[in-house]
Amino acid sequence: MTEQDHDALRAIVGEANLKTGDTIEPDLFHDELGTVANSPEVHLTVTEKAMVAKIMRYANDRKIPVTVRGAGTGLVGACVAVKGGILLDMSKMNRIIELDKTNLTLRVEPGVLLLDIYEHVEKEGLFYAPDPGEKTATIGGNISTNAGGMRAVKYGVTRDWVRGLEVVLPNGETATFGGKVVKNSTGYALKDLIIGSEGTLAIITEATLKLMPKPKYTVSLLVPFETRAAAIDAAPRLIMDHVIPTAVEYLEKEALRHSESFLGKKLPHNNHESYLLVTYDGNSKAEVDNDIDAASALCVEQYGAIDAYLIDTEERKSSVWTVRGGFLEAIKASSSAIDECDVVLPRKEIGAFLEYTRDLAEKLSMRIPYFGHVGDGNLHIYLCKDDLDEKTWLKRRDEAFGLLYDKAAAHGGLVTGEHGIGYAKRRYMARQLGEAQMTLMRGIKATFDPNNILNPDKII
Amino acid sequence: MTEQDHDALRAIVGEANLKTGDTIEPDLFHDELGTVANSPEVHLTVTEKAMVAKIMRYANDRKIPVTVRGAGTGLVGACVAVKGGILLDMSKMNRIIELDKTNLTLRVEPGVLLLDIYEHVEKEGLFYAPDPGEKTATIGGNISTNAGGMRAVKYGVTRDWVRGLEVVLPNGETATFGGKVVKNSTGYALKDLIIGSEGTLAIITEATLKLMPKPKYTVSLLVPFETRAAAIDAAPRLIMDHVIPTAVEYLEKEALRHSESFLGKKLPHNNHESYLLVTYDGNSKAEVDNDIDAASALCVEQYGAIDAYLIDTEERKSSVWTVRGGFLEAIKASSSAIDECDVVLPRKEIGAFLEYTRDLAEKLSMRIPYFGHVGDGNLHIYLCKDDLDEKTWLKRRDEAFGLLYDKAAAHGGLVTGEHGIGYAKRRYMARQLGEAQMTLMRGIKATFDPNNILNPDKII
Repeated sequence: MTEQDHDALRAIVGEANLKTGDTIEPDLFHDELGTVANSPEVHLTVTEKAMVAKIMRYANDRKIPVTVRGAGTGLVGACVAVKGGILLDMSKMNRIIELDKTNLTLRVEPGVLLLDIYEHVEKEGLFYAPDPGEKTATIGGNISTNAGGMRAVKYGVTRDWVRGLEVVLPNGETATFGGKVVKNSTGYALKDLIIGSEGTLAIITEATLKLMPKPKYTVSLLVPFETRAAAIDAAPRLIMDHVIPTAVEYLEKEALRHSESFLGKKLPHNNHESYLLVTYDGNSKAEVDNDIDAASALCVEQYGAIDAYLIDTEERKSSVWTVRGGFLEAIKASSSAIDECDVVLPRKEIGAFLEYTRDLAEKLSMRIPYFGHVGDGNLHIYLCKDDLDEKTWLKRRDEAFGLLYDKAAAHGGLVTGEHGIGYAKRRYMARQLGEAQMTLMRGIKATFDPNNILNPDKII
Repeated sequence: MTEQDHDALRAIVGEANLKTGDTIEPDLFHDELGTVANSPEVHLTVTEKAMVAKIMRYANDRKIPVTVRGAGTGLVGACVAVKGGILLDMSKMNRIIELDKTNLTLRVEPGVLLLDIYEHVEKEGLFYAPDPGEKTATIGGNISTNAGGMRAVKYGVTRDWVRGLEVVLPNGETATFGGKVVKNSTGYALKDLIIGSEGTLAIITEATLKLMPKPKYTVSLLVPFETRAAAIDAAPRLIMDHVIPTAVEYLEKEALRHSESFLGKKLPHNNHESYLLVTYDGNSKAEVDNDIDAASALCVEQYGAIDAYLIDTEERKSSVWTVRGGFLEAIKASSSAIDECDVVLPRKEIGAFLEYTRDLAEKLSMRIPYFGHVGDGNLHIYLCKDDLDEKTWLKRRDEAFGLLYDKAAAHGGLVTGEHGIGYAKRRYMARQLGEAQMTLMRGIKATFDPNNILNPDKII
């Protein structure tokens, strides 16, 4: 890029919103996990959609790469400007535009944080159900990875909560897909194609989200088991026995200890091998109590649980969810470097897969802690560098990834349940999906972005 | 196509499964509505996916058009072989492959009828929630139009219930998108792109559907109102008041009378201007009773309903749902020809849109009965030819369509909520979505089907 490019872009976004070279904050060179890093030539902060359209027209004419970034909480390098060029920062496009109580929709700009959405709608008695662990992510980022989260068992994933998208295409044209409507069979599902496309097909400038009334009661159970197998088996059994929870998280002693010592906070009843954290919600106390009673009885009487502790006081809730929420941070802090495997499996394959993971950790002499959304089959598995030298670490990491993804595929699983492909997981996806599907994906990319300027080298 | 083509195709499907010329059943020349008609050169009935792959390889090499057909219950001509060539009949690929009770999934071939899916899973206490009016449609057809149905208010549409698809691409290659997994962020959403693509991108050879436990209790209320406006306003008000129904259907005297006289069956309490038919379901009687009581009280005390009749006996249920289910057939039988507008609107725009529709009927001197899924904003509006001559009918029909779709767009609506674009509604979609989106759709089509052999002239 030239000085002339800088001047042209400065004219679009204003002096204060353009940074170059050494003035760019180094935190913007990587994402939350930090395994992919590169510096953009220019960092542009946009505050309105007209700026995005102008920037894309300019960049498209000159074939300048553009990488879109929200809060940078991703784990696969999707928001890293691996080809340099423009880093397009959407974090200041963070207005909540309209809460429509009749149609139960919320229109937001892409830079709004998940926690701000919850706060905005919940004070009106409304509910946006997707519940990814990272609440400081932007909604644009959540849509771009089709983020899942803990309540997916009952409420589905981000895709299920996006009714409409307004986007800027790589050539600077704008388009609106869907809207406030509940149903849509009007041509190809372009909205759904943008969801999960990790900023490679178009830039989201506005989203219309679906809301529902907030369930009036939410109660969790912490259910300890003596063996991992019993805990993991209990999740699909609850579902088979038709006492479907809102969320089922699997916790294990090792991940727990990390989180506890990292946070200086303890889980109640924390001396067991493995746990399910099971949540029910609903609109009547009687209904939720019914579910909780039924789940407790099934866990203790039929699935071999040691007990089933009600997490009902604010203090207990806070300690359980803080410890659960601290897993990723704690594991990161415990190792000199980590990398992550976000496989998703059919629910009943989880036990066998985690057994394989533990064997692999032993075989490779590598620490591999994990936790997981066992209710929906999505596992977060962390490879830890610890005191391995760089070369050994990279070799073992790649070997572990290869083996884990192959094993997942053999069990009917997929490379990623909610974190996306980004830069880091491309070869594993390509290997699993095969050439026919990669050809389709490349064709779709070329249709939207013939000059390959939008988030190049991501996904494909 | 030549004799040699016939021989080659006969070798793939077997003598009994190939028909040509006059031996092809004329019912296969059109769909349920019959507004689009053409005869294929060859009618092939396939019984396994390997046949589909072989046929597509052959057709793709020779650029022979292929139109996929299920039960032919569509309304926009999507299953009509408008370019001749091969009509690929999937109705005999109708095996239910696997009910997986642990993962709560059902694997089916595309020719399985919706009513057979309900029967198969409900006897196991399980539930496939999408509820389109036409129960003799195939699941392949439902997926291809992203069919909606009455329970969309609470449970979403077909898209939300498809976890995985196995397809044959136009070049004869096979691909599997998704699977039994609940979450998926693995590359572009190819599964979602196939859903709603009306047989233009790939041929579905197997689907993995999501199931849930069947709600134990279902109760409906028939709620008469003195004015249309009061009835229509009540649907979003129930939702705003957070007593969210499973389904809300709007019925009006005129459509009712047609259905009653067509079926020789009467709705109870049938002497009112307009009605809501409101359904609640759940797992405890107390919960459903609570909802029913709250909805009755709101309707009568606050929304101006005349009464709220419980539809609780088998006899009452049967008469209400039979009359409601008979609308399309009855309207069809009442006119020499009809055509249909399947607009979807934000819920709160329905009242204004139907008022416009009635004014238009008067202005054009055309009978335009309608009914609708007011809970999800999807209306079915019927233009009736009655005793108009062919030329006047076509002129007025096209004028009415143009005005209705423009009006829908002005209210934030879309051309079709659940019936699709097919052949008949292409120009209305193109006009609403505009050139940028049409270019994307053409690019996607060319990516999947570079020779434009699969269901040509549909959607785009």
